[in-house]
Amino acid sequence: MESVDLIIRNGWILTIDPEDTLVEKGAVAISADRIAAVGPESAVGARFLAAKTIDARGGIIMPGLVNTHTHAPMTLFRGLADDLPLMTWLNDYIFKAEGRYLNPETVYKATLLSCAEMLLSGTTTFCDGYFFEDSVAEAVQECGMRAILGQGIVDFPAPGVPEPDKNVAEALRFIRKWQGKTSLISPCLFCHSPYTCSEKTLREARYVADETGSLFQIHVAETITEVTQLRERHGLSPVKYLDRIGVLNPRTLVVHAIWVDQKDIACMARKKVGVSVATESQMKLASGVPPVPAFLNHGLDVGIGTDGCASNNNLDMFGEMGATARLHKVMSLDPTVLDARQVLRLATHGGARAIGLGDRIGSIEVGKKADLVIIDTYKPHLTPLYDPVSHLVYAASGSDVRDVIINGRLVVQDGRLLTIEIETVIDAVERLCREI
Amino acid sequence: MESVDLIIRNGWILTIDPEDTLVEKGAVAISADRIAAVGPESAVGARFLAAKTIDARGGIIMPGLVNTHTHAPMTLFRGLADDLPLMTWLNDYIFKAEGRYLNPETVYKATLLSCAEMLLSGTTTFCDGYFFEDSVAEAVQECGMRAILGQGIVDFPAPGVPEPDKNVAEALRFIRKWQGKTSLISPCLFCHSPYTCSEKTLREARYVADETGSLFQIHVAETITEVTQLRERHGLSPVKYLDRIGVLNPRTLVVHAIWVDQKDIACMARKKVGVSVATESQMKLASGVPPVPAFLNHGLDVGIGTDGCASNNNLDMFGEMGATARLHKVMSLDPTVLDARQVLRLATHGGARAIGLGDRIGSIEVGKKADLVIIDTYKPHLTPLYDPVSHLVYAASGSDVRDVIINGRLVVQDGRLLTIEIETVIDAVERLCREI
Repeated sequence: MESVDLIIRNGWILTIDPEDTLVEKGAVAISADRIAAVGPESAVGARFLAAKTIDARGGIIMPGLVNTHTHAPMTLFRGLADDLPLMTWLNDYIFKAEGRYLNPETVYKATLLSCAEMLLSGTTTFCDGYFFEDSVAEAVQECGMRAILGQGIVDFPAPGVPEPDKNVAEALRFIRKWQGKTSLISPCLFCHSPYTCSEKTLREARYVADETGSLFQIHVAETITEVTQLRERHGLSPVKYLDRIGVLNPRTLVVHAIWVDQKDIACMARKKVGVSVATESQMKLASGVPPVPAFLNHGLDVGIGTDGCASNNNLDMFGEMGATARLHKVMSLDPTVLDARQVLRLATHGGARAIGLGDRIGSIEVGKKADLVIIDTYKPHLTPLYDPVSHLVYAASGSDVRDVIINGRLVVQDGRLLTIEIETVIDAVERLCREI
Repeated sequence: MESVDLIIRNGWILTIDPEDTLVEKGAVAISADRIAAVGPESAVGARFLAAKTIDARGGIIMPGLVNTHTHAPMTLFRGLADDLPLMTWLNDYIFKAEGRYLNPETVYKATLLSCAEMLLSGTTTFCDGYFFEDSVAEAVQECGMRAILGQGIVDFPAPGVPEPDKNVAEALRFIRKWQGKTSLISPCLFCHSPYTCSEKTLREARYVADETGSLFQIHVAETITEVTQLRERHGLSPVKYLDRIGVLNPRTLVVHAIWVDQKDIACMARKKVGVSVATESQMKLASGVPPVPAFLNHGLDVGIGTDGCASNNNLDMFGEMGATARLHKVMSLDPTVLDARQVLRLATHGGARAIGLGDRIGSIEVGKKADLVIIDTYKPHLTPLYDPVSHLVYAASGSDVRDVIINGRLVVQDGRLLTIEIETVIDAVERLCREI
């Protein structure tokens, strides 16, 4: 018998491996931060002796969810302003609140809150872009989450970066500070968009990302207005413009990609960029519907993000899965588009690939990092259980998450967060927000 | 001091009265099955002495949610078949399973399960249409819910109604049996559609509904195929055809109403029918998007339903509110369409009006039936709290429901169902479904 640290047993295992293997009464063995074995409970039990065992009690064992796009500190502004025209919302509410209330302390506390919400709803990895990203990293570290964190870059005075001409240097400083510091945090940069960053800024940021081997994130083709502006300025679509100035390569995360045409999609596929959609936020802001089925047909790696809580207004990836599966069906009037299996893949391994972590996380396979979630299915709304994948996409919500393991460490147990004191965080953020 | 049975205090009260009054630190006094008072906690406390007090602990106190369209027993088929072309799904899976597995016992147990799910997620009233509706009524009665229950009518052999020419008579028998039996159940009938019921059947059903003073429910204009068929058969749209044969009047619930044109909408408004949409199911089946903003502009009473669990796949009205608010924004590319207040109204008083209960339920007003829900907002995903309405529509889920009161009776307390034993129901349905 081999010794391992942890065995999770007695669950439906959705591996999300290349064959979408489902093990009906399965077990996962975990040794330190890695998956040592996955298979039928009898086989795993015969081979391994575990220091600790978790009984999934017939529930679902799945890879941790990967949220490929958010602005974690924006939980500060959750529900502050909704149902407004985009520019009124941004200029009169969000930008004003950001300018007045963001500082290292508020960003830190709001990120603790976001991490708590994400962990309790089964997200183990997220990809972030914001300002005061050092504070985001500190909060993430405290919570024990995995994250790709991008320091924001924009060509006007921003929170923590009053002088725009130092924005790329600030991102470089952030990347150097956090690179290699902990295996859970990968620092990177986040250019706001091709209409708020100059060509010079974008080229410099690309250079920094390539030199440091980090991800280059950018919002692209989010609104019709953006496309019109870019065409006027450069005679090109946002995607084509970014390609012309050399910004697109496989270490790029193109966020939104709503108003893209066939040529843009072909270009994105040629450059092998990752894509993140953010279905619920895109619907709520009335930005539009990205052509996800076309992205997948072109072989692009696509992930799903929640976006920030000012526009979502939660960080529940189960809601995103359901909305994504349903929206593309009704848009195409075809109920076979984006089936539950495809959508679950987007929210796990697809997203992991899109942000460059596909070889480490996103599926339950031997050798991968042990980022896992156990779903409690003994509930009225998850009864009966014919097909666990269907339940995850169409019936479950984040509150059905029972246990969460990141890098081999148990961080949520029986719906209770183990890494931080949740009441302290809720009270602190509620106090901060009384001023806003 | 006046005596009352119950006071709920210390919450944000969303009354959904005609002025959408919000009371920040409010209380509701309940006497027997009715609301005796609503207002600031200090005022209510000074006037009433309560046998029992519930502390909402700063959460939200709202009217119980009204699910205006479902087929409760279809929880039996939750997740049995998804992502299929509509006709394959219906003919190869749903109709077959219904034919083989429906009987009074399975319908009764599945309805207990549905009621448990609805109660735990804050729905206090639902409008149903199915077969073996006596068993549905028995289960509803046992759970202590309020419901409008329609015995199904269709012109081919149906579960429990093998001879189609007795379908209207069977509905009449059902209505007579349940009318006046309990104040919580209003029996009625449910004609499947204008393409599966003949003109004779529809006219007879209308007559029975009018004679018994009960609601006439019908699926209308759900798919393009239906519209094409009706135009070929009758030279009219489904709405216009139903109007011509005299079926539309204020005691009618038109369900779906997706493929309707301006003339259809004007006709529906003239006849003052109620409308139920079912956003998530309509998206998942790729049926289409009903013109809800136009319905509201025409002054129609509109409610939101979940539809049955074979096509949703849950009964959570919070998910429906979020999906409805978001979908109509992105369809119109206008983020101001269907704001959170409007959508919360659809899910409460709007729905109550659409099914003919607007004078009894759907809002927290003196004299109305005491159907109330308390939401626990002390959670990461509901922090901070700037606007309770925003949270309900855009951030909450059914699992945030803490307490539920129906007709003055506490049926859910601290997330635990008081009227039936939930484990027994889950186990019974799981056992039944192992055969399917």
